[in-house]
Amino acid sequence: MSALIAVDIGGTTMRAASYPITDLKPIKISKVHLPNSSESIINTLQDLIQSVWVDNDEVIALSVATPGPIEPESGFIYNAPNIPDWTQFPLGEELRKTYSVPVYFGNDANFAALGEWKYGAGIGHSNLIYITISTGIGGGIICNDQLVIGQKGLAAELGHVMVQPDGPICSCGKKGHLEAFASGSAIVNSVKIQIKEGQSSSLQLGSNLSAFDVSNAARQGDNLAIKAIDKAGEYIGIALASFVHIFNPSIIILGGGVANCGKLLTDPLLQRLENEVIDPVYLADLDVVPSRFGDDSGLLGALAYARQEFGIE
Amino acid sequence: MSALIAVDIGGTTMRAASYPITDLKPIKISKVHLPNSSESIINTLQDLIQSVWVDNDEVIALSVATPGPIEPESGFIYNAPNIPDWTQFPLGEELRKTYSVPVYFGNDANFAALGEWKYGAGIGHSNLIYITISTGIGGGIICNDQLVIGQKGLAAELGHVMVQPDGPICSCGKKGHLEAFASGSAIVNSVKIQIKEGQSSSLQLGSNLSAFDVSNAARQGDNLAIKAIDKAGEYIGIALASFVHIFNPSIIILGGGVANCGKLLTDPLLQRLENEVIDPVYLADLDVVPSRFGDDSGLLGALAYARQEFGIE
Repeated sequence: MSALIAVDIGGTTMRAASYPITDLKPIKISKVHLPNSSESIINTLQDLIQSVWVDNDEVIALSVATPGPIEPESGFIYNAPNIPDWTQFPLGEELRKTYSVPVYFGNDANFAALGEWKYGAGIGHSNLIYITISTGIGGGIICNDQLVIGQKGLAAELGHVMVQPDGPICSCGKKGHLEAFASGSAIVNSVKIQIKEGQSSSLQLGSNLSAFDVSNAARQGDNLAIKAIDKAGEYIGIALASFVHIFNPSIIILGGGVANCGKLLTDPLLQRLENEVIDPVYLADLDVVPSRFGDDSGLLGALAYARQEFGIE
Repeated sequence: MSALIAVDIGGTTMRAASYPITDLKPIKISKVHLPNSSESIINTLQDLIQSVWVDNDEVIALSVATPGPIEPESGFIYNAPNIPDWTQFPLGEELRKTYSVPVYFGNDANFAALGEWKYGAGIGHSNLIYITISTGIGGGIICNDQLVIGQKGLAAELGHVMVQPDGPICSCGKKGHLEAFASGSAIVNSVKIQIKEGQSSSLQLGSNLSAFDVSNAARQGDNLAIKAIDKAGEYIGIALASFVHIFNPSIIILGGGVANCGKLLTDPLLQRLENEVIDPVYLADLDVVPSRFGDDSGLLGALAYARQEFGIE
């Protein structure tokens, strides 16, 4: 029997799984936290891969989803959010030193889109937008039944589209991007600013205040938290309207932790999307749905990509 | 010999040409102004097609580029800017009553992108963005060597992406779209507002003040005109940065009359594009060029589309 190994390197955890050629049920699956010292990340990654390796089967390929822009052919990482030492980092070179099987690479959100399209919420949709809202905002696009990666594999950076030129500074250093208005970090920042300004809230200022905390407070009726999530939803709706005009997709899939805010986020999002489209025909056959695989979308997309390369359906 | 007939219905003129199967040199080509009375547009269109018909050759297909969103399969027009009576108009049905050959349809800017990609400035580019800046702003996208049309053929409405939510009203009725900041109409509006506010300019207020007039005044050093075009260029640069993050293309082709403003438009456009990209790698192998065919891009794209349908390269 042959097996494929899929890896998803996230902002806080790394996940790996070995899969048989034609099944979605992993043979082995494992997860580790990213080590604090960035120097040992490669070692941790290799240990993780080892832990899901299948000695009885022949491993025919590795497929790796990474955060941030990456050159898919070479596996050269331009920059990886949350992994400062992986700026201009030749991950492909490093891994190919160790593994003699083919190693494939892709941006984590691109692979997540592929996973949802092949096996999940997006099956059968030739034109699909996947947007993941967590610490940052990432995206993946299927167009004419193909993943959109662009000339260097850097496409679908849906968090870095302009929504308001005079807006707040984004994680990328530019102003006014969607991510600066609607990511988990943006929600937390907006809450912090308002508390500092003296607005009342059940939330406490602190360096570890998270989007999850804001979401919980909102569920319990905290007005400031509700408004912060509402604003994020509105901006996502505005951006989605633009994406709908650009791609005319039949499905939008929402992933990432912030999407778990549920209606607090999706109500303003859908309302704004509806208000902003230039013609209702764009919405007539458009589904807006949560991801099916949640945190596993990237892993399954990495698997789908490797299978595609081997011509396995 | 066989021939194909291509038609491009614009905001002010209609163009048609008959082409041999494998050459770009038209057998016959003709152009008429759109009649004032919208009722006779279909008659004018049919007369135009008749004028380029080739009796000695067998006409094997008609291919029609239309302004605004259209359903390509049926030829149903949702709305056609400048042709009020063509709102919810079954153009396909009308033409198929008269012509027994296959009739193909597409949005004019989508077809223009296809024409430039197949025969013009975009040859060899697998990922291409075409943006046309004239009275309105339209777009066409090639992604993975395929035209992006979306689930209903309504994709690539690049004028209707949000660039500033509190911006001016767009032709579509929504606020803050690129078209509302940077189209020919937007440039004229911005000039008019400033003259009304008492700012000095060589330009005169009047209902027939055109973007062409503004462009001429700018070339002659009129400061207000220069600033209006500069502002349009900046907003196009902002939007292009978003498109570059979304598509990672290797070429951007600028079409439409406003693009003829030359460096007055492209200098601020390129400067802003450069300032707004999140990583210089997006620009490293990116060409930004004028269209090769100008007003003929749509016609050649309609031709390319029909040839594609017949499997002719």
